[in-house]
Amino acid sequence: MTAAPAAVGILAGGGPLPARVAEAAHAAGLAVFIIGFEGFAEPDVLAPWPHEYVRLGAAGRMLALLREHRCTELVLIGPIRRPSLRSLCPDAEGARILARLGKALFAGDDGLLAALVRILGEEGFCVRGAHEFLSHSIAQPGVLGRFTPDAQAMADIRHGVRVVQALGRLDIGQGCVVQNGVVLAVEAMEGTDAMLARAGTCQQPGEGGVLVKLLKPGQEKRADMPTIGPQTLHNAHAAGLRGIAFEAGNTLLTDRDACEAEAERLGLFLIAIDPEVCLGSTP
Amino acid sequence: MTAAPAAVGILAGGGPLPARVAEAAHAAGLAVFIIGFEGFAEPDVLAPWPHEYVRLGAAGRMLALLREHRCTELVLIGPIRRPSLRSLCPDAEGARILARLGKALFAGDDGLLAALVRILGEEGFCVRGAHEFLSHSIAQPGVLGRFTPDAQAMADIRHGVRVVQALGRLDIGQGCVVQNGVVLAVEAMEGTDAMLARAGTCQQPGEGGVLVKLLKPGQEKRADMPTIGPQTLHNAHAAGLRGIAFEAGNTLLTDRDACEAEAERLGLFLIAIDPEVCLGSTP
Repeated sequence: MTAAPAAVGILAGGGPLPARVAEAAHAAGLAVFIIGFEGFAEPDVLAPWPHEYVRLGAAGRMLALLREHRCTELVLIGPIRRPSLRSLCPDAEGARILARLGKALFAGDDGLLAALVRILGEEGFCVRGAHEFLSHSIAQPGVLGRFTPDAQAMADIRHGVRVVQALGRLDIGQGCVVQNGVVLAVEAMEGTDAMLARAGTCQQPGEGGVLVKLLKPGQEKRADMPTIGPQTLHNAHAAGLRGIAFEAGNTLLTDRDACEAEAERLGLFLIAIDPEVCLGSTP
Repeated sequence: MTAAPAAVGILAGGGPLPARVAEAAHAAGLAVFIIGFEGFAEPDVLAPWPHEYVRLGAAGRMLALLREHRCTELVLIGPIRRPSLRSLCPDAEGARILARLGKALFAGDDGLLAALVRILGEEGFCVRGAHEFLSHSIAQPGVLGRFTPDAQAMADIRHGVRVVQALGRLDIGQGCVVQNGVVLAVEAMEGTDAMLARAGTCQQPGEGGVLVKLLKPGQEKRADMPTIGPQTLHNAHAAGLRGIAFEAGNTLLTDRDACEAEAERLGLFLIAIDPEVCLGSTP
């Protein structure tokens, strides 16, 4: 009897990307096992693949399942909200991991997720980034779709890059909305969709603004990469924006074709930028 | 017939502070004339004083009234929302002033207000800061009321100071909410009350957070000083916060006694800080 081959373990939050990673791993000839986090992972997305559901706090069960299914490589993918400690109800292994997380629990999202990746590494797993599997979902620098930012929009994008970089150095959010030089809204704990809704209520007269989303400096890409999906485009349009600028190579498009189609339909630009090139391009 | 003596002209937005400035000027033996901005100034506040109402866009009428009432010194006080250009309906003088504002209209709130103060100066008026009249409403460094921040709250205050200073250098907002090292919310165009409501929905387990409000570097104090009133305390408490830190010497308390009483009643700390001393105090 031969041992089953090693598998890719997918720790799945919400949205369609866990299935995309599974498809990519399967296409590369790898076995797949998905652990869906209860309350976040979507049953329709997981259904076609070998999977189990686990509470976020049940780290012992999660590690046992991963070992039982011979997962050597792990991918964390799909949004989960930062849980409250009260709601975690950790199992025995979960309590030990919480203790190992220690101060990182209070060190901002980045510190927490980076510590989780480190602990999974210490447990003997190799944590890979979802972007290593999803090359089609990562854009190279340039415009996607038919619409391009004009000079005013480019100036707003540059200002937004400066703002998000300053925020990122303080481990705050990943995005902001700028309209004609005025920063309408800045993202912290509430997330991009709530920020977009607020920006809509703060709109100024004149041409619409732009959403700028970037990776934070030092952000753990294997745990929490910025994502953009058709819903982001829909919300940006509803907030009166003219387009979205995001970081080339460091943003997951949950459904690239649908994003491009939605941008075309709504008349939005969608541009992947290199922040440093962007800042260096004009005064 | 002797010429009427020079008067202090008060350009009044919302809230009770225009009357406080009028009282202080009157107590100093100065005549007072208030221009209330329609839709912002509160009739009960203006009623005891000589006053007229003027649309924000009616700059010609405003300047004529100020000259007719021999106002040589001006004070801008009380919140107005940044108007949309469409809603301004400028009169002839208003249109000329809009043209003189030019790019400052799109230069962020600070740029706009600083340009307004400059133009009023060019028109021959001496623009004074409300804080020059309201010494009782400006706190010296220290705690107001009975409650003091503990070590965790002081650490959150220091982190908040770093965040707001970084934001301020980019002309964004004046405040943020920090809880146990995590930045829950950052203020941009939406204002402090909306930010507090959002911070309430993003609360984390553990001790409550703090609101930090500071003057922006280079902010025109004569046009837009941060203010705190009993409602701010009420909203901070509703958002689960433990207290408020604000900039000593650079924050107007709309009603100092009511603020202290409300802090006592709600169990909140209220501390006036010198940001540089605060950052230098401990690692």
